[in-house]
Amino acid sequence: MDFKTEFKPLTVQPQEIEGKSFEIITEELGEHPFTEQQYPIVQRIIHASADFELGRSLVFHKDAIEAGIKSIREGRTVVADVQMIQAGVSKERLERFGGGVKVFISDPDVMEEAKRLNTTRAIISMRKAIKEADGGIYAIGNAPTALLELIRLVKEGEARPGLIIGMPVGFVSAAESKDELRKLDIPFITNIGRKGGSTIVVSAINAISIMAAAQK
Amino acid sequence: MDFKTEFKPLTVQPQEIEGKSFEIITEELGEHPFTEQQYPIVQRIIHASADFELGRSLVFHKDAIEAGIKSIREGRTVVADVQMIQAGVSKERLERFGGGVKVFISDPDVMEEAKRLNTTRAIISMRKAIKEADGGIYAIGNAPTALLELIRLVKEGEARPGLIIGMPVGFVSAAESKDELRKLDIPFITNIGRKGGSTIVVSAINAISIMAAAQK
Repeated sequence: MDFKTEFKPLTVQPQEIEGKSFEIITEELGEHPFTEQQYPIVQRIIHASADFELGRSLVFHKDAIEAGIKSIREGRTVVADVQMIQAGVSKERLERFGGGVKVFISDPDVMEEAKRLNTTRAIISMRKAIKEADGGIYAIGNAPTALLELIRLVKEGEARPGLIIGMPVGFVSAAESKDELRKLDIPFITNIGRKGGSTIVVSAINAISIMAAAQK
Repeated sequence: MDFKTEFKPLTVQPQEIEGKSFEIITEELGEHPFTEQQYPIVQRIIHASADFELGRSLVFHKDAIEAGIKSIREGRTVVADVQMIQAGVSKERLERFGGGVKVFISDPDVMEEAKRLNTTRAIISMRKAIKEADGGIYAIGNAPTALLELIRLVKEGEARPGLIIGMPVGFVSAAESKDELRKLDIPFITNIGRKGGSTIVVSAINAISIMAAAQK
């Protein structure tokens, strides 16, 4: 197509913007409790939310990052609760290892089953996911019911995710679902409180996939 | 497929969860400066962010909501800066009026032109958008450069959006781009400060499309 409008520079070199943002974040965050390995995830989440409170509320299981890197390098599926996460994740780095993102929430069989049981599609989508994609990263940014169901499936020995990124947002069960997640002794990344969301979860996945791609 | 896992109820009727969340929001928000017409948008944004500060920072041009409803009912395109917005918006209500969501940022010609000019794809995507979809809603949740470029195009008389939803997030130019948007006398919805993001913008679009669908 024809880009007739004359070019007029603004701020605008993409790499420069990201670098400058990361500098500001490091400066304003100041002292923090995170390890060197955790910090890139914290930084990217603050970058995507402009929310230092949210950044400071992050909690990492001790094996979380290694498990996430391993899962990506083995080409395992990232299961997400909603399409927004699938749309936001940098697919190129996952695909390099043979992986990708799957979402089951809009599958016709999931919708039908949720209706039949008068429950959330999110719950049923987790039941489908563990049959189709056990062992990878489970990334939940929207539905507390999905996270609660996944926790139940783990406790009952039916699911063994490589890493759970559990940061649903909201006022009903979101904070509680994360409290439950923190009690599990399997790799997780979560936060304390009501905040969360798809953009936050996407940042975490992208940060881990950058680390996975950088490993020799 | 076979959902072998036995059903075990959690919280879980979808409508109940949303209703209960909205009650909590109204109670905790208390007094606020928003009109009856603006409030459903504020409420849905708080619902998607669990962030009352962000909710309180919203600013509406006086014609914003009427313009948004009109745009949707006329079936005009919603232009978004990133795919996450396209993935998150409830398409069914837009399609009922003949509309939909378009994103140009990953178009090959946009990527090529951005590279050639050493600028952001977001900027070039706005230049393409005004040629392909002028007059609808422009929804920007990620890239301040997209919003700044759109503002420039409006000022120079090259674009006449029906409504700008401008809530990019970030540390470089995000707050400033919103300051510029608030100076325009065309319909806009924005917020003060660095916060924003795709999930917030999606909430605003969905709230307006619910109003559009409810109108006789």
